[in-house]
Amino acid sequence: MIKAVAFDGDGTLYEGKKSIEEVRKVIEWLGERGISCYVASNTSSVDKIALYDRIGGIIDVENIYTAVDIMIEYIKEKGISVYPIGSNYIKERLANEGIEIVENADAVCVSHTKELNYGSFKKAMEILLNGGDLLAANADRYYVGENGLLPGTGIIVRALSENFLVKARVFGKPSPDMLNRIIEKEGIRKEELLMVGDMEETDIGAAKSAGCKSLLIENNIPQLVRVTADWKVNRESLMDAIKSIVGS
Amino acid sequence: MIKAVAFDGDGTLYEGKKSIEEVRKVIEWLGERGISCYVASNTSSVDKIALYDRIGGIIDVENIYTAVDIMIEYIKEKGISVYPIGSNYIKERLANEGIEIVENADAVCVSHTKELNYGSFKKAMEILLNGGDLLAANADRYYVGENGLLPGTGIIVRALSENFLVKARVFGKPSPDMLNRIIEKEGIRKEELLMVGDMEETDIGAAKSAGCKSLLIENNIPQLVRVTADWKVNRESLMDAIKSIVGS
Repeated sequence: MIKAVAFDGDGTLYEGKKSIEEVRKVIEWLGERGISCYVASNTSSVDKIALYDRIGGIIDVENIYTAVDIMIEYIKEKGISVYPIGSNYIKERLANEGIEIVENADAVCVSHTKELNYGSFKKAMEILLNGGDLLAANADRYYVGENGLLPGTGIIVRALSENFLVKARVFGKPSPDMLNRIIEKEGIRKEELLMVGDMEETDIGAAKSAGCKSLLIENNIPQLVRVTADWKVNRESLMDAIKSIVGS
Repeated sequence: MIKAVAFDGDGTLYEGKKSIEEVRKVIEWLGERGISCYVASNTSSVDKIALYDRIGGIIDVENIYTAVDIMIEYIKEKGISVYPIGSNYIKERLANEGIEIVENADAVCVSHTKELNYGSFKKAMEILLNGGDLLAANADRYYVGENGLLPGTGIIVRALSENFLVKARVFGKPSPDMLNRIIEKEGIRKEELLMVGDMEETDIGAAKSAGCKSLLIENNIPQLVRVTADWKVNRESLMDAIKSIVGS
């Protein structure tokens, strides 16, 4: 029996900056039945408040998990310094959290940015060849932007990890980190959590690694890595599928 | 019996823009004994004329092989269009060779550049997801610049190949392409060619894959991928080693 549902953000709850109507109705329906809804998002461009606004406040802020929050929690827990490759949002966020940002850091910390920079790769190389860690908010291969597919954080993560032969610690899906937090917070068994998303590798992959149930919303996004979901639907049939899975 | 010797360029024949005296003497000694000397260089920043100048003309231009020449030969033979990610040198070189350069190309063609650009990665992604090929002058993880280690072409190659799950066709070492040309030109057996270089993965790796003999000049450059050479020496003992391998 499903007792909580986690939704992917981009492509599932919203597209570009617009929330998706079908999913909104599903969340209302679940709420009426006392089933908790969560967001488990790989985004490293916005914080949970911005996500809350983007989804029209349909899921409470305290039920929104982002890969960046988990990564920041880890960095603070370890008490390490970082050299960030990412957007200004992340750099400010890390600084505001009191995390030490230096060039000669304990770890390279990667998140999404469109500002690729050879000098950053050189500094990251020096840290990694010196035995530093490689942390990544996510390793998304691509994402759907307002004008189609765009390269994701994965290009930076894999440039570093594969070129310098260092394993990256990835906090976003398909890592089970966010789903494990939800299971723990709800105090439910793992198979009582349903993950709903549109990317097989990350959304369904995270569900598999956490041991949850999974539902794939099929669309036209290329799936480079195939992972089979427990259920598959198109967006129009989402409500019917949820009713049959959760039980009306 | 060794009948020809191929030398790596950067770090073996020259450092920065300066040719290395010890190797120069070895080449003279080999020349006096009628043993052909070659350059097999992964460089994608300069052409063979510039390399010839850099090594003070000690090896004939027609005995200088670069990864880019082999890559250009391949592109012309296949008659394909390319989208280049690389320096202005390469872009001009491709254009001068009459190769069609377009955004919607048959292949992405990667060589060294310090100008990383998100827009280029996006265009490359579109070509690769559309089934285009990934060609790379080399996949060097790093190289020794005038002020220490710098990230190599490998960061771009691996960002694309590993993120979009496309196998790169790499023309430089450790591919045996350049060494095979030398063996063919000399009309010798593969074990009669000796490869001399300072990088295990590329120089010694190429010798292994071509089936040649190999000599590693040991230095302080990190070797991320270990490949065991037939002989190892430091630069100061290079002449003695060559004398004992080739036979005085």
